[in-house]
Amino acid sequence: MGNKLIINFTPTGMIPTKSMTPHVPVSVSEIVEDVHRASEIGITIVHLHARDPITQVPTYKKEIYGKIIEGIRKYAPYLVVCNSLSGRDFSGLEQRGDPLFLDGELKPDMGSLTLSSLNFNKAASVNSPNMIQDLANLMKSKGIVPELEAFDLGMLNYAKYLIKKEFIKPPYYFNLLFGNIACSQSNLLHAGIMINDLPENSLWSLAGIGDDQLKMNSLSIAIGGGVRVGLEDNIWYDSSRTKLATNVDLIKRIHTIAHVNDREIMTPQEFRLKMNLESGNGQYGRKN
Amino acid sequence: MGNKLIINFTPTGMIPTKSMTPHVPVSVSEIVEDVHRASEIGITIVHLHARDPITQVPTYKKEIYGKIIEGIRKYAPYLVVCNSLSGRDFSGLEQRGDPLFLDGELKPDMGSLTLSSLNFNKAASVNSPNMIQDLANLMKSKGIVPELEAFDLGMLNYAKYLIKKEFIKPPYYFNLLFGNIACSQSNLLHAGIMINDLPENSLWSLAGIGDDQLKMNSLSIAIGGGVRVGLEDNIWYDSSRTKLATNVDLIKRIHTIAHVNDREIMTPQEFRLKMNLESGNGQYGRKN
Repeated sequence: MGNKLIINFTPTGMIPTKSMTPHVPVSVSEIVEDVHRASEIGITIVHLHARDPITQVPTYKKEIYGKIIEGIRKYAPYLVVCNSLSGRDFSGLEQRGDPLFLDGELKPDMGSLTLSSLNFNKAASVNSPNMIQDLANLMKSKGIVPELEAFDLGMLNYAKYLIKKEFIKPPYYFNLLFGNIACSQSNLLHAGIMINDLPENSLWSLAGIGDDQLKMNSLSIAIGGGVRVGLEDNIWYDSSRTKLATNVDLIKRIHTIAHVNDREIMTPQEFRLKMNLESGNGQYGRKN
Repeated sequence: MGNKLIINFTPTGMIPTKSMTPHVPVSVSEIVEDVHRASEIGITIVHLHARDPITQVPTYKKEIYGKIIEGIRKYAPYLVVCNSLSGRDFSGLEQRGDPLFLDGELKPDMGSLTLSSLNFNKAASVNSPNMIQDLANLMKSKGIVPELEAFDLGMLNYAKYLIKKEFIKPPYYFNLLFGNIACSQSNLLHAGIMINDLPENSLWSLAGIGDDQLKMNSLSIAIGGGVRVGLEDNIWYDSSRTKLATNVDLIKRIHTIAHVNDREIMTPQEFRLKMNLESGNGQYGRKN
């Protein structure tokens, strides 16, 4: 089980629209349907972004997250659910923390926590030290585990600071993301040093933006890491961009690569055990 | 001349106050005096931050920068002068670009350009893609050369994007800064990969925050790079923090290390030649 493959499925994100690709799930039922299909093939975690039902733009509202989680858990009760707390479009703690205010059967297991401010292609994404600490404290108070997102070297150092100051506690789960324009790039030196810098007691997955998704996923499968995969980061199936991907296509390809690399998929229950999460039978979040 | 040592002197910064150290120069005359003394010992560039004459807090106002530059050039006409365009306290283009609106004898040779948003210890420093591009364009239009500031891997990738899109043109000058809490750290792997990732045609200096200043400066002298040194990044002379540094102390120590490492100091005129800057006799900024 030590070397099983974490598949962190990111079906929607904040950027893809129906005009970019008809395959991106944006409504509650579309997202639930894609998660069910991915879950049947085999995934470990789902990283959710909710969209407004009318405008289809990203929303922080817990009511929408709650409906998605309700739908997912009808058929995949053990799947590890992570709600996005992104500051890309929302800046206040009340907005960003809203997806954590779901209880009982609707409570998410995890919440995303980006470890510094950064620039994306067109805009800054501001995550001030106070905001990061406030979100970490909020998650700790609710027994929700942070999905630690690191886009560059310094974010791993900030994770170590949060550990030292006990804002977060072991074990840890990291997404290491490569290929954003002002962040670490998808090459072996950058990936190698990021993995080398991870705190002890960390599980981790590699993500790549656009064409880099396949490269970083395949690399990670080869070296024993997990993958973050889905239309959030990449809408194309091929690097020549002749075929739009579906989430199912992307998950199936990961399974093919995993199979030939002799990597078994880590089940949600196995991940829960490693991360000290409750079983998923109506008791979500972290034990103790 | 290929291996001469760039000394980029940072006397003031935005953080040190008189209550932290009596040695930090904050008034126009104090800054001019420290720059004169450093210049007599031997420096290549001065990186200026202006302070409000009454409150002593950082100011973007060109009038204050102009007075400092006027004072510096009376005695050190060739010294390469770089004005800070920091977004740490000021967010608008009009404010951040103000120190570039000085002409003739008061025109700065360079302006600082931080290559992404980042977190410092207590707050985010937001440099959106549009702001970076606007500041780069403003400098280009004025023949002022950017001092490119990179705090992590992704900022070097963004520099390459600016090069590709012709927002900046060669040769380039970089400060690589290590030891901020959410940025690259002062170790050999981080420094090695940052230096490895520099674009062609780049001159560069290494900076370290606090105790890391001496480490990164000494490392850089050993391997053929330049140094950014001064009270902006570090107010202590010793790592046990028993003695507050003066700017003169810090510059003299760099000269001692340079001497035993067989490194000559690069003169401002030599830097001007390498960077295609005007001579400094009343015609500042970049040729062509």
